[in-house]
Amino acid sequence: MTQRIAVIGAGPSGLAALRAFESAKQKGAEVPELVCYEKQSNWGGLWNYTWRTGLDEFGEPVHGSMYRYLWSNGPKECLEFADYGFEEHFGRPIPSYPPRAVLHDYIAGRVEKSGVRKYCKFSHAVKGVTFDAETEKFTVTVKDLVGDRVFSEEFDYVVVANGHFSTPNIPYFEGVDKFLGRVMHAHDFRVADEFAGKHVLMIGSSYSAEDIGTQCHKYGAKRVTFSYRTRPMGFDWPEGFEEKPLLTKVVGNTCYFKDGTHVDGVDAIIFCTGYLNYYPFLDDELRLKTRNRLFPPNLYKGIFYEGNPKLLYIGAQDQFYTFNMFDAQAWYARDVVLGRIALPSPEEMRADWQSWMSREEALENADQMIDYQTDYVRDLLEPTDYPRLDVDMCARLFKEWEHHKAEGILTYRNRSYPSTLTGTVAPVHHTPWMDALDDSLEAFLNQPASQAAE
Amino acid sequence: MTQRIAVIGAGPSGLAALRAFESAKQKGAEVPELVCYEKQSNWGGLWNYTWRTGLDEFGEPVHGSMYRYLWSNGPKECLEFADYGFEEHFGRPIPSYPPRAVLHDYIAGRVEKSGVRKYCKFSHAVKGVTFDAETEKFTVTVKDLVGDRVFSEEFDYVVVANGHFSTPNIPYFEGVDKFLGRVMHAHDFRVADEFAGKHVLMIGSSYSAEDIGTQCHKYGAKRVTFSYRTRPMGFDWPEGFEEKPLLTKVVGNTCYFKDGTHVDGVDAIIFCTGYLNYYPFLDDELRLKTRNRLFPPNLYKGIFYEGNPKLLYIGAQDQFYTFNMFDAQAWYARDVVLGRIALPSPEEMRADWQSWMSREEALENADQMIDYQTDYVRDLLEPTDYPRLDVDMCARLFKEWEHHKAEGILTYRNRSYPSTLTGTVAPVHHTPWMDALDDSLEAFLNQPASQAAE
Ligand SMILES: Cc1cc2nc3c(=O)[nH]c(=O)nc-3n(C[C@H](O)[C@H](O)[C@H](O)COP(=O)(O)OP(=O)(O)OC[C@H]3O[C@@H](n4cnc5c(N)ncnc54)[C@H](O)[C@@H]3O)c2cc1C
Ligand SMILES: Cc1cc2nc3c(=O)[nH]c(=O)nc-3n(C[C@H](O)[C@H](O)[C@H](O)COP(=O)(O)OP(=O)(O)OC[C@H]3O[C@@H](n4cnc5c(N)ncnc54)[C@H](O)[C@@H]3O)c2cc1C
Ligand SMILES: NC(=O)c1ccc[n+]([C@@H]2O[C@H](COP(=O)([O-])OP(=O)(O)OC[C@H]3O[C@@H](n4cnc5c(N)ncnc54)[C@H](OP(=O)(O)O)[C@@H]3O)[C@@H](O)[C@H]2O)c1
Ligand SMILES: NC(=O)c1ccc[n+]([C@@H]2O[C@H](COP(=O)([O-])OP(=O)(O)OC[C@H]3O[C@@H](n4cnc5c(N)ncnc54)[C@H](OP(=O)(O)O)[C@@H]3O)[C@@H](O)[C@H]2O)c1
Repeated sequence: MTQRIAVIGAGPSGLAALRAFESAKQKGAEVPELVCYEKQSNWGGLWNYTWRTGLDEFGEPVHGSMYRYLWSNGPKECLEFADYGFEEHFGRPIPSYPPRAVLHDYIAGRVEKSGVRKYCKFSHAVKGVTFDAETEKFTVTVKDLVGDRVFSEEFDYVVVANGHFSTPNIPYFEGVDKFLGRVMHAHDFRVADEFAGKHVLMIGSSYSAEDIGTQCHKYGAKRVTFSYRTRPMGFDWPEGFEEKPLLTKVVGNTCYFKDGTHVDGVDAIIFCTGYLNYYPFLDDELRLKTRNRLFPPNLYKGIFYEGNPKLLYIGAQDQFYTFNMFDAQAWYARDVVLGRIALPSPEEMRADWQSWMSREEALENADQMIDYQTDYVRDLLEPTDYPRLDVDMCARLFKEWEHHKAEGILTYRNRSYPSTLTGTVAPVHHTPWMDALDDSLEAFLNQPASQAAE
Repeated sequence: MTQRIAVIGAGPSGLAALRAFESAKQKGAEVPELVCYEKQSNWGGLWNYTWRTGLDEFGEPVHGSMYRYLWSNGPKECLEFADYGFEEHFGRPIPSYPPRAVLHDYIAGRVEKSGVRKYCKFSHAVKGVTFDAETEKFTVTVKDLVGDRVFSEEFDYVVVANGHFSTPNIPYFEGVDKFLGRVMHAHDFRVADEFAGKHVLMIGSSYSAEDIGTQCHKYGAKRVTFSYRTRPMGFDWPEGFEEKPLLTKVVGNTCYFKDGTHVDGVDAIIFCTGYLNYYPFLDDELRLKTRNRLFPPNLYKGIFYEGNPKLLYIGAQDQFYTFNMFDAQAWYARDVVLGRIALPSPEEMRADWQSWMSREEALENADQMIDYQTDYVRDLLEPTDYPRLDVDMCARLFKEWEHHKAEGILTYRNRSYPSTLTGTVAPVHHTPWMDALDDSLEAFLNQPASQAAE
């Protein structure tokens, strides 16, 4: 009997899984039957922008955490699919830091072309996954949101690809319940224009704080205060920004910090405090429990769940690498499913992930983390037929990117990098990021003729 | 063997169920074992204010739809528990329109006193309910949020009391996805101060629109525009308010309406478009499907689910009556469980709810609706030992309230009504509602000595 695989989520990770199997199929392999359940009405995951926040029209938590005016925060050259380059998709080289709509177009273009839409059941939210040790089958329970009915199907494998930057982590701070302004999490941030003229306090010191803070500034915020728990971002902040230690309490519209200082007249507090790895649909014994980290526990190769290696996690780790790392995971997972790669003994698998995890725990700075994830991706790609990806060049570009950010947090997105696939250096964008207020695909691709000719 | 009852939710409806059984027990009856699962960390349901919006610290949808500065929108005399009056709780008469914290104190006071806390498992969210026709048992699957584990238990009865003003209904309007201001649902509204100086557009023409609109005005909004689908509220709106037909599209910050008019410079669009009766944890064949109405289909006496009368819904209807209606339902349901009231044949039950529903469909105005729900409550109370409730007097007060609202939407909360229990006319509040900016229990109860002496 044909084996069946359920893929949960049609974001970049789930789509990588579909693409991996389809690519083997096109080369003549016999592959299992694929069913991808996606709760949104289309694919693209976080890249599928929604104006909605909180709960959607069906009462389901809104998945989207992306906002208007979001631009790639890393060079697109570091995430390029080795089997489908940007030049192939757009018919010409494009600048290195595209806005959201452009990346969505790129992700969707690849999968549309490879014909995997037929596997996707949109507006279907997975509600439960159980495993029967006797039959060795998973039962996946799904809600058809439009049809308003629940049903179950059996599968031999389950790919968990629901993303882990969607369920907000929102700690409590004394007095925040009595704050007289707006309190929200980055997950619900949508339109920076709303904060024009405002004093915003961002809690957190990672990507969301950095980007939402700079974006509010770009669209006219009066003042941006950051509050960090562990360490400040430490950029050479221009006028209008400041970094403070952790918030200790809120009184009226005044916020107090751990160093005893305070700021008055705060209009909005935006929690940029990250997300929960959240798998509410998985039975307790199938459920990964981890914080956001480069190597979560209990996952052999960062993919195969301890005790049940037919449960495959894709994209569960914190990410320097994104799209191409999901591909690396998907190709490796596929090859295990197809019997091309054999899994070692449970003891060896455990020793392997533990050694990766210990190595992760010793990392001291961004450059080391980049090298670490580069090693991880290289390790996955090595035994597969995924087209050659120059991960050493990716690592170099990531490090350059870090240095460019340090040189200018408001200007790094004006830089250009060479494609690891074609070597072509990306054209400079027609407008510096700080002045590029329109983030549409049309505005981005509409390189004025004078510059395009250069 | 002792029978077991699961109660889902410890809001006013679930608490009514606990209180009903406890009252029989205190009078010597043998009652089933009670377990109440409540996903919040304390009881009170919507009355338990939270600053959180969207998802909570466990990733669960935030239940609360109430906001700072929310005052009762009907006279407290219409919702008084017949077995525990306001005078008994507060030790003296209090004004007719208390703010949220005061009503929460009252609800909690009764149950605290009656000792039902021992039945409650807080921070426990029900995730699934199935029924086994052979064993005639329900399996209730619960997530212990703090312990981060899922477990199941069996029950003979399930009381569904999870409220139906929590999952927002958010329709799409053309262009709302590109609106450059804030878009939100009433469910996520918390602090009116945020809208000072703003032009807000409220979609909807029911209680939320009316109250959030007037509240924004009270706390300094520049302009409040209402947009109705079926009919305008039609109050004699003061300067600063206007009513428009339904929104047709949004362009930039301009909103267009069905009559061809438009308003410019809208800062926020607040969807006051009601809520979904939402029971995601119930198996399809146990799940009530209804819009918000005075008599939902398939519920005998508005309580017993067709085809499975051991599944009891409390508070599933639209509400003029609230706390005392939930009591009426709980006492009736309890008496059926205890065998004091026999259920008629399935055919008779069906004929009964259908006749109530047809009667509902013929109602033409608020006075008729009030009489209708009065009849419903009277019908439930009649065979039980719930202390005498003068529902005819309640109906009279509701009608007076409607007229007081029509006379002055910003002043009706300054009125006083007599208690149906004691006959005492409520004292006039020390401050007219429009000037009472502090909604705390302390401020409300702190009647200046000069007035208290009157
Ligand atoms: C604000 C923000 C900005 C980012 N910017 C960048 C960037 O600039 N560059 C970059 O490379 N990466 C960025 N990322 C990282 C991002 O995680 C990845 O780019 C990528 O989207 C991850 O893909 P994924 O498929 O693992 O998860 P997601 O993109 O989150 O997709 C998961 C999919 O699963 C679906 N799903 C979830 N639960 C269920 C369910 N129960 N049933 C069915 N379907 C379900 C969701 O609807 C979604 O479509 C950003 C992340 C965030 C939060
Ligand atoms: C904004 C607003 C203002 C209102 N103002 C008034 C007013 O002024 N006067 C008035 O009389 N009525 C008012 N109401 C009406 C209100 O519906 C009732 O007063 C009352 O709260 C309903 O009680 P309930 O127990 O049925 O539901 P709720 O109060 O909603 O309580 C339901 C409980 O179930 C819990 N729950 C939900 N899902 C689960 C789950 N899966 N597992 C476990 N627990 C769960 C919730 O956490 C909650 O505690 C208002 C409603 C709203 C939305
Ligand atoms: N394209 C873009 O521009 C863009 C924009 C935003 C986000 N993203 C992506 O989105 C993903 C998520 O980024 P993220 O910044 O949201 O999450 P994150 O990288 O996981 O960072 C979480 C932050 O929250 C802080 N934090 C957590 N709990 C806290 C607490 N209790 N009190 C105070 N601070 C607390 C952490 O501080 P500690 O350091 O103390 O732990 C850290 O600074 C990343 O992949 C990122 O690349 C991209
Ligand atoms: N204490 C307080 O002050 C207070 C404040 C707020 C709410 N409440 C309580 O909260 C409960 C809920 O009240 P509510 O006003 O939120 O809900 P509601 O009474 O159910 O009203 C829903 C409103 O949304 C409109 N609507 C629904 N779908 C729409 C669509 N697609 N387009 C346009 N309009 C649409 C309806 O219009 P139609 O008429 O066209 O159907 C109606 O006006 C009530 O019990 C109320 O008493 C109390």
